Amino acid sequence: MKKSLGAKTIIYPAPVLVVGSYDGSGKPNLMTVAWGGICCSSPPCVAISLRKATYTYGNIIEQKAFTVNIPSEQYIEVADYCGLASGRKVDKFAVTGLTPIRSALVNAPYVKEFPVILECEVIHSHEIGLHTQFIGKIVDLKAEEEVLNVDESLSVQKVKPILYTPGYGYYFGVGNELGKAHSIGNKISKN
Amino acid sequence: MKKSLGAKTIIYPAPVLVVGSYDGSGKPNLMTVAWGGICCSSPPCVAISLRKATYTYGNIIEQKAFTVNIPSEQYIEVADYCGLASGRKVDKFAVTGLTPIRSALVNAPYVKEFPVILECEVIHSHEIGLHTQFIGKIVDLKAEEEVLNVDESLSVQKVKPILYTPGYGYYFGVGNELGKAHSIGNKISKN
Repeated sequence: MKKSLGAKTIIYPAPVLVVGSYDGSGKPNLMTVAWGGICCSSPPCVAISLRKATYTYGNIIEQKAFTVNIPSEQYIEVADYCGLASGRKVDKFAVTGLTPIRSALVNAPYVKEFPVILECEVIHSHEIGLHTQFIGKIVDLKAEEEVLNVDESLSVQKVKPILYTPGYGYYFGVGNELGKAHSIGNKISKN
Repeated sequence: MKKSLGAKTIIYPAPVLVVGSYDGSGKPNLMTVAWGGICCSSPPCVAISLRKATYTYGNIIEQKAFTVNIPSEQYIEVADYCGLASGRKVDKFAVTGLTPIRSALVNAPYVKEFPVILECEVIHSHEIGLHTQFIGKIVDLKAEEEVLNVDESLSVQKVKPILYTPGYGYYFGVGNELGKAHSIGNKISKN
């Protein structure tokens, strides 16, 4: 029997995405978001939602570009920090010791130390309510060679991305492999 | 050194969300999507992206409502199946043995057997490209009592949600707890 918990914003798993942007003076900033993910296969697009009050919101409005940086488990403290502090008050790259790399493709910085980054140019923005959703066209995905399989596909076990659990408030790692996607369901259609 | 992999639609982790909807005749359907997640805290909203070619797309256009059903690990085969088969050709509830429950709040069915479900009414839709994004206002979240903690918060370890890994093509479970969100980053600001 299901119990009503009210209109809660809970979906498991949520990602931990660190958004990179420049302000008007060229200062790089980072902000961690959990409200985001891929939203279109063609053109390849990512959606991220931000509150207007954030420093990153103004940066993205101005630059029309951002990066999505996927931290590995070892960077969990800096990823959490980048969701707590404001770029209005601190230089998060300086405080965390992370290295900003200027994208050659979009006007935004990415994080040298994180294993996977996406360079995005804004093609839409949607006012939903407290959050504004930015749709970024993915111009390129870059990954460290150490997190690639021999066929150059990404290895999620090597990336070690972090899961966020809204309504529970903890971070988790990736667990056991459960099965092959677009495949194990065929057992059912054959029954 | 980062290697360019091109404009790939990869973000880790992606969720496995099974979308419930009715067609014009009242037949319930299910479709599994990975392009989705929470997109606004107030009003509480979820975004899901669907191709126009899907049966569910037409259903949501017509009914302006859907449910998001979060399967636990034990339902991984049916979740995969619901992303492979089309409701145009089969009755996925009948084939999978899942039980449709008519929502009392929105015109969409949810899955009795899944631990967490969200009832949503469509408030926006955005044409992005191959995928159309539907923004659903979350009217209620319901969960089985077995997946709740004593304080009635959701337990992610009891829900056992499934992770999808685009560009890798496997499903994974939730791994080890890594730390407390909105908290462990404070160590950095205190340094």
